[in-house]
Amino acid sequence: MNEFDVIRRLSGRLPAPPPEVVVPIGDDCAVLRLGGAGDRLWVAAADMLVSGRHFKESWSSPEDVGYKAVAVNVSDVAAMGGRPRFVLASGGAPDPGTTLRCMEGVAKACEEFGVYPIGGDTTGAAALTVDVAILGELEAEPMLRSGAHPGDLLAVTGELGASTAGLLALEDGDAGPERLIRGHLRPKPRVALGLLAARLGVRAAIDLSDGLASDVRHVCEASGVGCRVDLEQLPVADDTRESAVSKGRDPKVLAATGGEDYELLLAAPEGLLRTLATESDVPTTVVGEVTAEREVVFLRGGVSVENLSGWDHFAAP
Amino acid sequence: MNEFDVIRRLSGRLPAPPPEVVVPIGDDCAVLRLGGAGDRLWVAAADMLVSGRHFKESWSSPEDVGYKAVAVNVSDVAAMGGRPRFVLASGGAPDPGTTLRCMEGVAKACEEFGVYPIGGDTTGAAALTVDVAILGELEAEPMLRSGAHPGDLLAVTGELGASTAGLLALEDGDAGPERLIRGHLRPKPRVALGLLAARLGVRAAIDLSDGLASDVRHVCEASGVGCRVDLEQLPVADDTRESAVSKGRDPKVLAATGGEDYELLLAAPEGLLRTLATESDVPTTVVGEVTAEREVVFLRGGVSVENLSGWDHFAAP
Repeated sequence: MNEFDVIRRLSGRLPAPPPEVVVPIGDDCAVLRLGGAGDRLWVAAADMLVSGRHFKESWSSPEDVGYKAVAVNVSDVAAMGGRPRFVLASGGAPDPGTTLRCMEGVAKACEEFGVYPIGGDTTGAAALTVDVAILGELEAEPMLRSGAHPGDLLAVTGELGASTAGLLALEDGDAGPERLIRGHLRPKPRVALGLLAARLGVRAAIDLSDGLASDVRHVCEASGVGCRVDLEQLPVADDTRESAVSKGRDPKVLAATGGEDYELLLAAPEGLLRTLATESDVPTTVVGEVTAEREVVFLRGGVSVENLSGWDHFAAP
Repeated sequence: MNEFDVIRRLSGRLPAPPPEVVVPIGDDCAVLRLGGAGDRLWVAAADMLVSGRHFKESWSSPEDVGYKAVAVNVSDVAAMGGRPRFVLASGGAPDPGTTLRCMEGVAKACEEFGVYPIGGDTTGAAALTVDVAILGELEAEPMLRSGAHPGDLLAVTGELGASTAGLLALEDGDAGPERLIRGHLRPKPRVALGLLAARLGVRAAIDLSDGLASDVRHVCEASGVGCRVDLEQLPVADDTRESAVSKGRDPKVLAATGGEDYELLLAAPEGLLRTLATESDVPTTVVGEVTAEREVVFLRGGVSVENLSGWDHFAAP
């Protein structure tokens, strides 16, 4: 049993949702209509970071952890095409000083992403733990995991594998590469691009938190479709490639399976993606296409690549 | 530095809140206007429970922990006079099975309190940890910590000290008293009474989570008032009294300082409290009065009692 099984077992048992729930549990965020009919739509999500699972205290400061806990939630809102607005942040640590430092990271990220903290909790805990719940606001129809259609192209924003390259450097105690390390510790979610994509009419997206190989499966399962992804097309920056090679890793496999890039994966018709590329400063790269056959295929030089998978939330660190 | 210092240091640094924020961080819940003007008001809060701090896994099942995490958040909503509506629940545990059991407790409490789960997170963690964020809906003006006025009477719902008596029994491995133990593990927040009190016009309340001696101070500080509380008036049930005495504890001191009763403390004019008592099945007991002098005084037989205090979230368990 992994995280997805837990969610599946629980959500299968829920009663019918109240009328405010437009999209229930199971996407990057739930979608709620909290005003009257015709009124604004809100999205909500939560993510928890735990010492020894999501970070090591030897290389991640409490401020980094608090910052990242907000950033990963902001990324969930970005994946729906929403604007992050409010957070509740709960932090536990062995001493109040560490909790305060973590909450200072929360406050810093809130400032940077234009999110306002409305509450939370602080407590003692043997290991640094932070959980953030977020409310975002939609300005267009939400992008959903279930919105992909055969014939859509798959595109990713920015670059892949950089966060994992940063993580490998941290784990090995490398001084550099600074940009990759910073990107791993303090990710910058794609809020502006998500808002623009939703406004232009993109209807399917997910944020790349578990790794493309996992996350594209979530989109395909929710949409009842399959896909072909060409590993050669994955955007990998030079420093990521060098870093991967120096550690004996295949850069494209790293890009496909490494998590925590907090880029967006979009599925949309080609013309729409072209408009998005024109109107945004953020690079988007077509990496594959959505197919009617319910099969997720990774290709490399035309040959199928097997056994790619992403992050398991219960795997030993 | 304790929990309150952390909150104080952080909230003192926040910029002016966005227009949706009616009541910011610092009360039992924040109050938000999430629809248009004149539209519904929502309340939001979060609370985290951590193994070894808030419970011991030797006497609290994962289901109990999940249940309680929802209940304590529901209690925060009740203290505002709100109706609990939606939760996000994040749980971490050493194995997925334990997380699933915890989430089953979350689901059970949601069902019981009429709350709908809209998301959350599950992860591995060395110690069972659960954080719940809640959204509630107001049907009247919110009850606030800052709403107490000199001349108001102070009243508590139900009974005090029962939860701590249950905790002491659990810690000592006593088989009984069953009612007190159950009340500690699965508290029943005062939702119906909170809704009624707000509707009748009560404007000051807090839920008794840290213990009356602490919580009444929060109300007085936020309201810029003081109070006199008569320990002799605190409602203590027979089994709580017997249990306290058998452990060499003073039942009234236990009632004043023991936390986690999840009863409500209300401050309101006498006539309003009388109406409330008439219209509700839940007993309310006048335990003191609000004074203009900014001093919190506990009396016993007319004599002042010093050094009563509640729960410190960072104190060793």
